[in-house]
Amino acid sequence: MTASATRLYPLPPGEMPVGSIYGDLKVPPRGVQHPSRPYVMLNMVSSVDGKAAMEGKSSALGSDVDRTVMRTLRSKADAVMVGAGTLRAEKLSLGLEESSVPQPLAVIATSTADLPLENLIKSASQELLVVTAQDAPAEIGHQLAQFSERASVLRVSKTRSGAPDLLEALESLAADHGVQTLLVEGGPSVNHALISSTLADELFLTLAPMLLAGASRDALNILDGPSLRAINMDLLSLHAAANELFLRYALHY
Amino acid sequence: MTASATRLYPLPPGEMPVGSIYGDLKVPPRGVQHPSRPYVMLNMVSSVDGKAAMEGKSSALGSDVDRTVMRTLRSKADAVMVGAGTLRAEKLSLGLEESSVPQPLAVIATSTADLPLENLIKSASQELLVVTAQDAPAEIGHQLAQFSERASVLRVSKTRSGAPDLLEALESLAADHGVQTLLVEGGPSVNHALISSTLADELFLTLAPMLLAGASRDALNILDGPSLRAINMDLLSLHAAANELFLRYALHY
Repeated sequence: MTASATRLYPLPPGEMPVGSIYGDLKVPPRGVQHPSRPYVMLNMVSSVDGKAAMEGKSSALGSDVDRTVMRTLRSKADAVMVGAGTLRAEKLSLGLEESSVPQPLAVIATSTADLPLENLIKSASQELLVVTAQDAPAEIGHQLAQFSERASVLRVSKTRSGAPDLLEALESLAADHGVQTLLVEGGPSVNHALISSTLADELFLTLAPMLLAGASRDALNILDGPSLRAINMDLLSLHAAANELFLRYALHY
Repeated sequence: MTASATRLYPLPPGEMPVGSIYGDLKVPPRGVQHPSRPYVMLNMVSSVDGKAAMEGKSSALGSDVDRTVMRTLRSKADAVMVGAGTLRAEKLSLGLEESSVPQPLAVIATSTADLPLENLIKSASQELLVVTAQDAPAEIGHQLAQFSERASVLRVSKTRSGAPDLLEALESLAADHGVQTLLVEGGPSVNHALISSTLADELFLTLAPMLLAGASRDALNILDGPSLRAINMDLLSLHAAANELFLRYALHY
């Protein structure tokens, strides 16, 4: 593991332990809190050619430094969300390693009844919320009850594509679960749905120093969905650790 | 146009006019000259999610600073190559703006007889070489002769996919045209072919501060082709101008 990182932007540059990347992050930034939904940050790792996974797994792309950065970002969020497809692809946690600190609410968004809970690594103290459409089968509730006492289902309207309405879900996260900051760890469909609904405020992107190529059905891009009118972004900060870059952008709609 | 850029890496950072980005580039680097082919640099512009074009045009992605950087890179190369698909997409030049300096050799690689020369902006003094397969129709030669006196055809073997063999083309560029440094400006298929044949030495990537998404048939990635085993890269330098980043990587095979 690289012992140190360098903040390259904003200037002046500074060396720091990798655990300090985003360590002083204050979100939401002053003056941009939304009245009825959380501040939404996307966090993804990508190859330099925009691929979000290697052999189906996002974890194969990032380094140990990337995993440290991911945990730092989780520590800044009230809730951490992924789409069910991301959970289906590999075992993952949506929490913090330290058991002594409050865990963020784990949120899984799914448009199907297929919820691979066997892949979710969850501490007993972490709450889990599954976001799905109104007409999703009742089995989801039973499956969840078997999985954990601290798990519940949030049913929201369906969009035309059949996916759960994410604005409605975000409003419920804010109103009913006190979530002011939401970290979204993919996958590409959830990212695209949030951006195309103008609901994503920031993108934290780890640029892994590799090229992968591949057809998009096998090798997903970080955004999976139809062309967007170009969404412009401001570069907020940039850190480097060895050849890996950590980019923070604010999205403008 | 942004008047100045900042080198962020390697440290220390430094402000400079945008025309100085890569102004002191020395290629090939000492000790890495290939015995029988040119040193190959890819130059591409990409959205942060890896898309190489907006509405089919790569030029819509980059800023004026990107175009300045592109010209600086051309001034360091003996030849500038694109695939015919890139020329088909939009009008472009493969030369320098100043008429007083020697122009790089313009090279177009094509696996079909469809050569949209009407899109090529070429000064009278610039030589043009079209690389194609041995069995390409003789019309290409006639079409070229009509287009310019300073144009010729280089016929090379075909790969299994029917594309011209790029190693053979590079060896001929070095042996018969004195090309020691080749700048390749895409498109995604040519980039992929060069990387998958371990022929690309460096990648210069302009990261445009935008998200585009889109299916890969409409919105090409910077690499178009089957999955590669992960090609690792070293970050050589990093410049910023406003929110646009200019990344220089060395590829390792």
